[in-house]
Formats: sequence, C-alpha cells, structure tokens
Amino acid sequence: MTVYAAPLDDIEFALRIVGLDEVAKIPGFEHADWDTVKDLMGEYGRFVADRLAPLNRIGDEVGSYLDPSVGHVVTPEGWKEAWRDYVEAGWTTVSVPAKDGGGGFPGLVGAALAEMLISSNFAFAMCPGLTRSAAATLAQWASDDLRAKYLPKLVPGTWTGTMDLTEADAGSDLAQVRTMAVPDGDGTWKVTGNKIFISWGNHDMSENTVHLVLARTPDAPAGTRGISLFAVPDRLVGANGEAGEPNGVVCVSTEHKLGIKGSPTCVLSYENSRGELVGELHRGLKAMFTMMNESRIGVGLQGLGLSERAYQKAKEYAGERKQGRLPGDDPSKTVLIGHHPDVRRMLTTMKAEVEAMRLLLFYTARVCDMAADLPDGPDKEAASRMEAFLTPIAKAWPTDTANEVASLGIQVHGGMGFIEETGAAQFYRDARILPIYEGTNGIQALDLVFRKLRMDESEPMLQVVAGMKEVAGRLESAGHQAEAKVLTEAAEVWTSSARWLVERFMSQTLDVMAGATPFIAMSGLAVTGWLMGKQLLASDAAGGDKAAAARVVTASFFLTQVLPRIGGYVGAVSAGIDNLLTPEVLGVES
Amino acid sequence: MTVYAAPLDDIEFALRIVGLDEVAKIPGFEHADWDTVKDLMGEYGRFVADRLAPLNRIGDEVGSYLDPSVGHVVTPEGWKEAWRDYVEAGWTTVSVPAKDGGGGFPGLVGAALAEMLISSNFAFAMCPGLTRSAAATLAQWASDDLRAKYLPKLVPGTWTGTMDLTEADAGSDLAQVRTMAVPDGDGTWKVTGNKIFISWGNHDMSENTVHLVLARTPDAPAGTRGISLFAVPDRLVGANGEAGEPNGVVCVSTEHKLGIKGSPTCVLSYENSRGELVGELHRGLKAMFTMMNESRIGVGLQGLGLSERAYQKAKEYAGERKQGRLPGDDPSKTVLIGHHPDVRRMLTTMKAEVEAMRLLLFYTARVCDMAADLPDGPDKEAASRMEAFLTPIAKAWPTDTANEVASLGIQVHGGMGFIEETGAAQFYRDARILPIYEGTNGIQALDLVFRKLRMDESEPMLQVVAGMKEVAGRLESAGHQAEAKVLTEAAEVWTSSARWLVERFMSQTLDVMAGATPFIAMSGLAVTGWLMGKQLLASDAAGGDKAAAARVVTASFFLTQVLPRIGGYVGAVSAGIDNLLTPEVLGVES
Repeated sequence: MTVYAAPLDDIEFALRIVGLDEVAKIPGFEHADWDTVKDLMGEYGRFVADRLAPLNRIGDEVGSYLDPSVGHVVTPEGWKEAWRDYVEAGWTTVSVPAKDGGGGFPGLVGAALAEMLISSNFAFAMCPGLTRSAAATLAQWASDDLRAKYLPKLVPGTWTGTMDLTEADAGSDLAQVRTMAVPDGDGTWKVTGNKIFISWGNHDMSENTVHLVLARTPDAPAGTRGISLFAVPDRLVGANGEAGEPNGVVCVSTEHKLGIKGSPTCVLSYENSRGELVGELHRGLKAMFTMMNESRIGVGLQGLGLSERAYQKAKEYAGERKQGRLPGDDPSKTVLIGHHPDVRRMLTTMKAEVEAMRLLLFYTARVCDMAADLPDGPDKEAASRMEAFLTPIAKAWPTDTANEVASLGIQVHGGMGFIEETGAAQFYRDARILPIYEGTNGIQALDLVFRKLRMDESEPMLQVVAGMKEVAGRLESAGHQAEAKVLTEAAEVWTSSARWLVERFMSQTLDVMAGATPFIAMSGLAVTGWLMGKQLLASDAAGGDKAAAARVVTASFFLTQVLPRIGGYVGAVSAGIDNLLTPEVLGVES
Repeated sequence: MTVYAAPLDDIEFALRIVGLDEVAKIPGFEHADWDTVKDLMGEYGRFVADRLAPLNRIGDEVGSYLDPSVGHVVTPEGWKEAWRDYVEAGWTTVSVPAKDGGGGFPGLVGAALAEMLISSNFAFAMCPGLTRSAAATLAQWASDDLRAKYLPKLVPGTWTGTMDLTEADAGSDLAQVRTMAVPDGDGTWKVTGNKIFISWGNHDMSENTVHLVLARTPDAPAGTRGISLFAVPDRLVGANGEAGEPNGVVCVSTEHKLGIKGSPTCVLSYENSRGELVGELHRGLKAMFTMMNESRIGVGLQGLGLSERAYQKAKEYAGERKQGRLPGDDPSKTVLIGHHPDVRRMLTTMKAEVEAMRLLLFYTARVCDMAADLPDGPDKEAASRMEAFLTPIAKAWPTDTANEVASLGIQVHGGMGFIEETGAAQFYRDARILPIYEGTNGIQALDLVFRKLRMDESEPMLQVVAGMKEVAGRLESAGHQAEAKVLTEAAEVWTSSARWLVERFMSQTLDVMAGATPFIAMSGLAVTGWLMGKQLLASDAAGGDKAAAARVVTASFFLTQVLPRIGGYVGAVSAGIDNLLTPEVLGVES
C-alpha cells in the first residue's frame, strides 16, 4: 500500500515564492489569507489522503469499464461512495468564482488543492477536473437560461461534465469533426454522431452527465470555422430541473489503456440527442479553447501530482530496503538503499523536478488569477499575455518530466519496481498519457513558437529572461557562482534560439516547425531555472532550518545538474528540416 | 498486428562499419564470409519474422504464468510449437563455438541474429538467450563429465537453462545469498533454498531445465567469497542421459509484471535438490560473471532489438494515419502524419538512436570475438581490455535509450499509442526492465568508474578518444564542420570528466560514486558519437544511393542533435555528494 501525505510545507513554500500574497490583494480574494488557506489545505490534504489515496490501486487493478450486462460503466468498489463524500464535503466548489456558486478562492489555491487531489488518485481526479472545466465553459459562454439549468448541478458535483472533441478522424485536427447538429425548431438541436476518447463519458458516480460536444451544423463553412459547441445532457432535464429520460447518448465501449484505468475512456454515440447551443454559432472552437487552456494547465498539474506521489513512494522504499554497503563499511553490514549515492541522486532528481514543476504551475496559476481577476489595466493585460505564453510550457514540461520522474521511481525500486503489486509501475503507466492528451506536446510546441513566442514582440519571454538575469545577479552576489553562471548562460542560449526562430517564422516555416519541440524543452528549463533560482535565494535567506537547507540542495542541484540540459537543445532548434528524414525515406506516401 | 521485417541492409551496413571483415580473418572464422553470412541472416530474418513476430502480442496479452491446476508454467498458445521449430531448424547453435557443438560463427554474427530474434519476440527470445549463456558458462567452467552431460542437450536447445542468482534479500548484493548446498557424500550436493526473479525458471517448452544456482556451502567464508555455483537440473538426468525423476525444484509462483509477460518470472524453491559443482568451490561468483558479462551485452541487444521493432511500428503508423496539413496546403486536405516536421523529428530520433545502438553493440561483439578468439598476443589483450571497458556502456546506454525510443513510439501514435490493442505500449512496458536487470544501470556506472575506467591507465578510453578525434578530423576535411565540432568537444568534455573522477577515486570516493551515472551517460554518447561519425564518413563515401543518403541524415542528426546532450552531464559528474539530498533529509535511518 502506498502512503500519501500531503506535502503541505512544500506547497506553502511554493505559494510564497510565486506570490499568494499578491493574489490575495486582488479585490475579491481578500479571504485567501494565510490562516484560511493553510486550514483549507490541511483539511483537504487529510481528506484526499484518507479517503481517495487508498482507492488508487483498485482503480488500476479493476478499472472502470462498460459492463454490457448493466448497460453502463461500472467504477471500482468504493469510488461511488468516495465521490459522494467528496461532493458532500463541498470540495468541488472551493476555487469556483462566487458568482458561479463557488467558494471564490483564487485559482492558485485551486492549483494547490488539485495537486493533492491528483497525487491521491489521478484517475479519480479527472472526474472533478472535467466537471470543473465544463462548468467554467458554461459560465463563460452559455446563455443565462443554460447557466441556470446546469451550473447549480455541475458546480457542487451533483452532476458531472465531459469534453467531447475527438472523433476517429478528428484528433489533433478538429477541422475534421463530423458529428452533426440539426435545428429542432424549438431552439434546441438534434445531435448525431460518434466521439472517441471521452474521459468519464459514462459512469455510475452521478445521476447525470453534461457533455460539451463539438459538432457541425447544416450549411456551416468547412474547417474549424464551421464548428459549434453544444451542451448535451446524458439524461434530459425535466421541468423540475432534475435528470429525467435518457437522451440517446450511448456508451458503445470503453478502452483498454496503458494507464489511468480507473478513468473510463468512452466511445460515445449520439442519436438525435437534444443539445443546446453554447456561445455563438460556428464559434464552438473559441468556447472550447477556454476549456482547453484551463485543461492544459490542469494536465500540467497532473504531471506534478503524479510525480509527487511517485517520489513519496520511491523515498519510502529507499528507507525500507536494505542492500549493499558503503565504502569502508563492515562487509557483514547492509545499509538502507537511501544511503547509496546513486539512489540519493535519483531521489534528489525526482524531488528537484517536483519542486520545479510546482513552481512553474503555481506561478502560471498566479498569472491566470491576475489575468482573470485584476481590475482592467496594463497589469491585467500583461498577465493575460504571460498566461498565453506560459500555458503550452506549463503543459509540456511537467508532463514530459513526470515521465522521467515516474521512471526514476521504478528504478529506485530495482526489480520490485517491475512487479505490478509494488505500485511504482502504475505511476509510470499513468504518466504516459500526459504528453499526449489535451494537445500533444508537439502541438504545444507549435502553439508556443507560432502563436505565443512572437506576440507582443515577445514581451512575456523577455520578461522571463530579465527575471533570469536578475536572479542570476543575486545568486552571484550570494556566492552561488556556479548556479549564477548556468542561469545566465541558459538565458543567453534560450534568447538566441528564440531569435533564430522568430527571424525565420515566415521565410523558413518548415525549419521553424522542425525546431519547435527542442525549443519548448528549452523554455521549460529556462522558466523553471528562473523559479528554482528564486527558491535558492529564498531558502538561503530562511537559513538554518532543515527544510530550507534541503531546498538549497534541490535548487542548487536543479540549476547545476538539470538546467544544463538546455545546452543540448541549441543545435536541434536551428538544425532545420533537412536534418530530418524525408517522408519518402520514411515510406510515407505523398 | 505489427509487421516486422528484418532490416537486413541496415544490419549489413553496421557489420561493415564495425569490421566483420576483420573478424572473419581470425583463424576459425574463415567461413564467415559475406555470402554465407548474408544467406544465414536472410533465412533467419524470414524465420523469426514469419514464425515468432506474430506470437509477440499473445505473449503480452496472455503471458506465461504458473497454472496451479497443472503444477507448471503454461506458455501462450503457439509458443511451444514455435520453440520446437526453432530448435529443429538448428537456430540455437549458430554462434556457439564448434568445440562446444555449435556452428562456430563469430559472436558478431550471433549479435546480428540476436537483434532480429529480440525484435520479433523479446519475451520469447529470453529463453534461448539464457540457455545459450548457461551453456557458455558450463563450457568454460564445468568438468568434462558435466559438459558431456549437459552441453549436448543445452546447445541444440533440447533442454533450456537459467541463471539463479537473486534471493529476496540478495539482489544487487549477492553477498547475502542464503541458499545452501551440502555435500551428499557421492560428490554431488544437496541444494536447499529459495530464488526469486528466475526468468524462464519453469515452463512447458522443453522437457528439462538446467538451473545454474549460486549457493553457500557449510563453513564457507562470509560474503561473496563463500559462494559457489551449482548445476541443478529440474529433472534428474538418468543413466541414459535423458530427463528422469523430479529433483525437488518447485515453481512456487510467477510474477505479474509491467512487461515481458511472455517470459515467466518464477519464484523457485529447492529442497535437497541434487546439484553438481561448476568450477571451483567458493569461486561461483567468478564463474557467474562470465555469464553475466555475456548477459549484459545481451541485455544491450534487447534494447536494440526492441527499439528497432518500436521504430518499425511507429513508422508504419506515420504512413497510415492522416491528420492535419502543412502550411500552404489546401485547408480541405489532410496529410499522412509522417509529413509533419515534429513526427519526422520523432522518427528520425528513433532511427538515429537505433543505428547508434546497433553500432555500439556490434562493435562490442566484434571486440569480444577478438578477445576470445584472436591468437594470444597484444591484440588479443587489448581487445580483452576494450571488452571490459565497453561492457557496462553497452548494457546501460542502449537500455536507457530503448526507453526513450519506445516512448517516442507511443507519442507518434498519439492517443492510439495509449490503447493497448495498438501494440506500441507493449514495447514501452517491455523496455522498462532493461535498465534494471543484469545489474541495474547504476551498478553498471559504478563498474565503469571504479573498475573499468582506471584499469591499464585508461587505455581503452584513450583509444576511443583518439578514434573520436581522428573521425572528427576526417569529418572536418569532408565538409562536416558542425558534426566535427560537436565530436571534438564531446571528446574533450568526456576526457576532462574522466580525469576529474580518476583523480578523486581514492580521496573522494563518495563524490566519484555520485558522478558515476552521469559519467556512464556521457560515455554512451561519446562511443556512439564516434561510431556514428564513422557512419557519416562511410555513407558519404558510398554517395548517391538512397540508403546512403538517409544514413548521412541520421548520422548528422545524431552528431548535431543527440550527442550535444553530453554537455548537460558535465556539471553533474563533478557536482559531488554534497549536491545530493542527505539520507537524513530523505528520511532514511542510519
């Protein structure tokens, strides 16, 4: 049995570094003072550790699958009751804006809670995560009637929500969506088609599910400009506001996946299912992007939460398993493996990367809060630009890195890591979806390079570069020469690689596309290097105590041993399309 | 269904680069001329592709598990017959020395066949691999009687063999072995104890299995110097030389693993099982190390074989799946994903890394042939030193890299990669054992740094460095400035990192231990960088043809986009033990 304990001190530290204090100054967030936030986090951490973490293994072993004999997806034993308790405790509402019926805490606090939720039970956490995104999309785009109909059910988690984008021929390329919505004459629409990869598309934990479905309407223009968004409930909502008759949404099958087996991945079929338009006709993709941007940061948080859990598991094993000895030890002695330098290296890597992910995601959440809730003005606009810039980075870097962390978690366990009962392998399998869904990391890279990097004359990036240089200067003054040097060099190579791309954006588009993935990898390292530099300075200042000393080690380790990877990408960014095998050589027809 | 086609041209090219011609000049290997070798490889490639590759999926889906109702491990449908056909075709004997009853082909040719075998069906391939290692150990260390008893059964594969080292408390630390062997008065021994993680420890594909078991004898000294090696057959061998009565070796259970599910991983119990001493009393570890060194290179080959298969699968998908379009394309068009620069990047990375692994492993196999079969003299001795130096590198780099390749294989498939039916996930799960077994890669790193690097005043490493500089010079002359520069810099940083370690070997042992893993990563890149430089020069020279042009691209890609990762490890090698979290902070008791 894996133990999970919410790392409240680490989370509090990260919240301080990224500036919860400043977020709490935004009008409306005054109640997010430290005492309240710490109490809230402590209580939540206990709940998820006690109630959800023990259900993580059964989610993997049994999974959630369509049971044709009952006609719906059956979740693992205990999950239904856990969801009921989660909803009853009111946990779904904490960071939902007060105007939408929530607790009105900042998204930054929501991010801290999300980390714990995901650490405790990633597959389970997807259900409230999707529900929250669906509610946010309706809150922003739906008519008053629709909001009144659905938000009181979705916000508290009485009903759940899904995102229904993908079809067999429309994955990364949503222009290919074929699901059709036909006007029904009464202002509603009849939706018919098939969607795949719908997480929590069907289940037995709530009495209704609201599907947000991308569909094409008759005579709509071709491509993505002809796609609209519809709210399609699993059961029609009666005059009393409660779930009534089935609405023709059928779960045809569920997938057998590498991981996150507790989260049912459904093939859904709609036949004349009644749907209501969300937002404007033909502007469905715009509405869906609200949901997708929030979800992208949510996927980054999944990388963080999973990594923290994998780290805790590996650390626990290193403190239990005896094997070998250190030079000079009595040959008859065996030591706990956590004494071996290479095991310490693996655990330090995991811990440092977890801390870096946390800072990146919390910082992004803070920027999102400022973009959403600052009073109108240049600060809000700057935050909005920074949010756009950081979103692909906050999705890609933590998800790629989570796979590294989970792999190290297996390696710490040695042969036992390969045995499923140990549990380390589950995190490794679960993590593998992260670089794929909500826009593959390759797509994040294109988003960063082609949309985000160039906008506003690269202002957000230049701001991070300035931050890196400022932190490097302070590190230098504080006697951290090696760390300062790496950070300064990182700022330089990142800047020059960006310049190379920006200059060729129009003239050598394919070369720029070829360099996008190494560039986003550089970007993740640069931003986290900057933030871990802040950690080093803050922990230095804290001085003395054990936790601060450990944070000095992990920050220094990150800067001197992880950040230098950035140099390995420089050649790759600018190598160009001709340094890649051609489709012809790869046997790909034209 | 995954298609596998033996990459005969690529294998032939690699054999030329590493010098099959020179191996064929060694007395006894004259029959390994190109015509013969190419015929052999062609026939073998067809056999494994037709007969074994289609059985790979069922090995994963059904697996090999102990069936308590029949009292033994049951292998998946079709595997027994495939093994029978493999044995009948004589494939187990090809590269076994003629004096031991084999075909007497060089190990280099054996390595080429092993790659294809593993690509076709990794879990299945472990059975002949272990059998071959067991036979080689007996051939080298056992008495004439024992050799006469077992080799005629093991070499052709009539019986199979296992390596029985690990116990619950003796994994990486074999000093803790507790299995006991007590003299029986008639020259044999009674072996009693338990072993875990015994691959192919029990199965239904052959009528007998010979276990090579590490055990302690009464009054033996403590630690590894008190361990002896015993041959313990599953069934006692009758006077007629055939398998007779059971020998008290019981398969207690089989493990549920992350991957290689077709290969049964057994817990074996021995109770007064009759065993015969192999080699000298108390020198069992020395005899076992023969087997382990060969097995370590064998595990490197598993990394190669698995990566080639994962590459073929991803390439196939990239030529079938349509999604999106390129800049400037008609918006209504969709293209095969192999046209997208980022997919080309992933496939090029996979292909380049496969080629680099192949060169490293074939080169190591060539060196092993020279060490084993050259006439006595300085060349043989130099080859022996190079073999010792390359072995940990040839185990660690391809196995770490195979995990990267298999992960990219999933990523190319997008969401489908996460669905088990697609098959890409199997390679990813299978690959994860490689950095763990036969000595974790952390142990390979310690072996490299503490034993191999310093011996003979680092002569083998200096020889590789000289090779890198020579190749860099030729690349420079041939107009490959960028590649020459990276290779030269790689030689420099590798050398200076090695010097840092060598100078601190005695005085700062823990610092050296802390730097071992980044150093072996550097070493893998340096050696493969050198060999890929040779590939670039040779392919340049070949000119004109399509295959040569593709090899120029992958070699250039490797040198300019993969090899630069070496710089990212420089700081890590010399950061020292104090840059790692302490056991105290990690919660590890002293």
